[in-house]
Amino acid sequence: MSVVVLTGGVGGAKLVLGLAQLVSAADLTAIVNTGDDFRHFGLAISPDIDTLLYTLSGKSNTELGWGRAGESWNFMAALRSLSAPDWFNLGDGDLALHVLRSARLAAGEPLSAIIADFAAKWDIGLSVLPMTDDAVATRLETDAGLLDFQDYFVRLRCAPATSAIRFDGADAAKPAPGVVDAIMGASAIVIAPSNPFLSVDPILAVPAIRAALAETKAPVVAVSPIVGGAAVKGPTAKLMGELGLMVSASAVAAHYGDILDGLLVDERDPPEDIGGVVVARADTLMHDLDDRIRVARAALALAESLK
Amino acid sequence: MSVVVLTGGVGGAKLVLGLAQLVSAADLTAIVNTGDDFRHFGLAISPDIDTLLYTLSGKSNTELGWGRAGESWNFMAALRSLSAPDWFNLGDGDLALHVLRSARLAAGEPLSAIIADFAAKWDIGLSVLPMTDDAVATRLETDAGLLDFQDYFVRLRCAPATSAIRFDGADAAKPAPGVVDAIMGASAIVIAPSNPFLSVDPILAVPAIRAALAETKAPVVAVSPIVGGAAVKGPTAKLMGELGLMVSASAVAAHYGDILDGLLVDERDPPEDIGGVVVARADTLMHDLDDRIRVARAALALAESLK
Repeated sequence: MSVVVLTGGVGGAKLVLGLAQLVSAADLTAIVNTGDDFRHFGLAISPDIDTLLYTLSGKSNTELGWGRAGESWNFMAALRSLSAPDWFNLGDGDLALHVLRSARLAAGEPLSAIIADFAAKWDIGLSVLPMTDDAVATRLETDAGLLDFQDYFVRLRCAPATSAIRFDGADAAKPAPGVVDAIMGASAIVIAPSNPFLSVDPILAVPAIRAALAETKAPVVAVSPIVGGAAVKGPTAKLMGELGLMVSASAVAAHYGDILDGLLVDERDPPEDIGGVVVARADTLMHDLDDRIRVARAALALAESLK
Repeated sequence: MSVVVLTGGVGGAKLVLGLAQLVSAADLTAIVNTGDDFRHFGLAISPDIDTLLYTLSGKSNTELGWGRAGESWNFMAALRSLSAPDWFNLGDGDLALHVLRSARLAAGEPLSAIIADFAAKWDIGLSVLPMTDDAVATRLETDAGLLDFQDYFVRLRCAPATSAIRFDGADAAKPAPGVVDAIMGASAIVIAPSNPFLSVDPILAVPAIRAALAETKAPVVAVSPIVGGAAVKGPTAKLMGELGLMVSASAVAAHYGDILDGLLVDERDPPEDIGGVVVARADTLMHDLDDRIRVARAALALAESLK
């Protein structure tokens, strides 16, 4: 059984960790959103990839919900003493990924090769692939103007109302090496319960990835990010409202459209008529590792049922 | 009384701190070696300037003798976990200067403007001027080949035997704004007891700085880095031997040559005939702030006597 998971940040990483307990590393590939990637003080930051690397190597900060466990913050304190912008928190240990990635990108290495090396150094067996080695930038058209993703997400804490989301560069972006092969060779494809609009859509916006998902014989199942008519975390529900959508599993299914074969819906959600996809239900909240394994198992079972 | 001090790293910073207790900030200018500056992981690092900024703002690590007080090392630990080169120690707080400097240089700001802003943010009143905003690289011809300064100094711990030292880029380098004016308007110029060959020579290798030192009416006095026939720290004595020089105050005076009017020699050193310069003697070891003030006062008194 060869499994591909499309994932964004924290919520997605939880599901990938669950899948990694059920699927051998050689048979598991995570394709990760890079639409959030940006430059800060010239450093190349890949928030979703790093969250996944920290989660899979046991380094994630479960108290904060992001970043590294045991992190220190002397860099930020020194930045503040120099009156430099401090709206994006960079932990002291976390900086190593950004500094090293920036140096290696500047030396001409593609992001995918750098991430593969980071994963190997941290004994992460499964394949962690950026969706692309090309630059794709998620930007939001809002009532505060056109905003870069991190401006919207971190600096403005998702406060502006969004009317449209775009993925600049996606049209011309090529999938990173291995991405299309993984999708075409998969026996199941799982879309993690990441934000469909901000974390999964950038992946789907890369034309050759969308084409591969449409073409692959593997069933494509998503884990709904909606629980009890609300999003577990982040701006998903607020965004859906602003975009004129119901905050519901069926709206998520409709959004993914043709590429989707099955949807794992939280058991708290009201029964809905979800046209065109096979629905399974489970408790999809992931507090601990057992939860993550349970949700991963339910997603794989749904995919298996669709073969 | 308007004082200019030419300085390198740790030893020089001690004297500058002493001078700052005796001379009003508006009347004191430090011209700092940038021949040690280099790029590491793409970050722009200015070791001598940063040492001076830390010293003057009360942030220096007196236990280590370099870097910041209360420094943490999570960045280095994370780098090591990624098998990245770790021969140059970058403290977590220290990184703020390098990251911010790199970003501002990339945005087109000259180094001198960035350093002036850092100094202002840290309430350093005196003028801290890099010798130049242009790239000058100290390199050593050694029995291990041509070495970049930090390769020689940090990675190889000064072990290779040196036959010659060069300052690539110095011939074409222009003094940073304010450097020549400070020299021409000074009533005294002090050369700190930094390494004459590695820390002071790069400053003197900038043609317009050397010309200004030759032209200025102000007396130029140096504090000898030799104490009791040895160097206080660092590779000064080893280098002098390799370059075929006696390890003595007179050899230092001969090295500085025409630009030097006076030399402050340590009282432990044997009396020597030092031709062409006026000699004063004092205890030049600087363990605490009182020592720094004493040495600064002796240097200023020597300069005053030469007017």
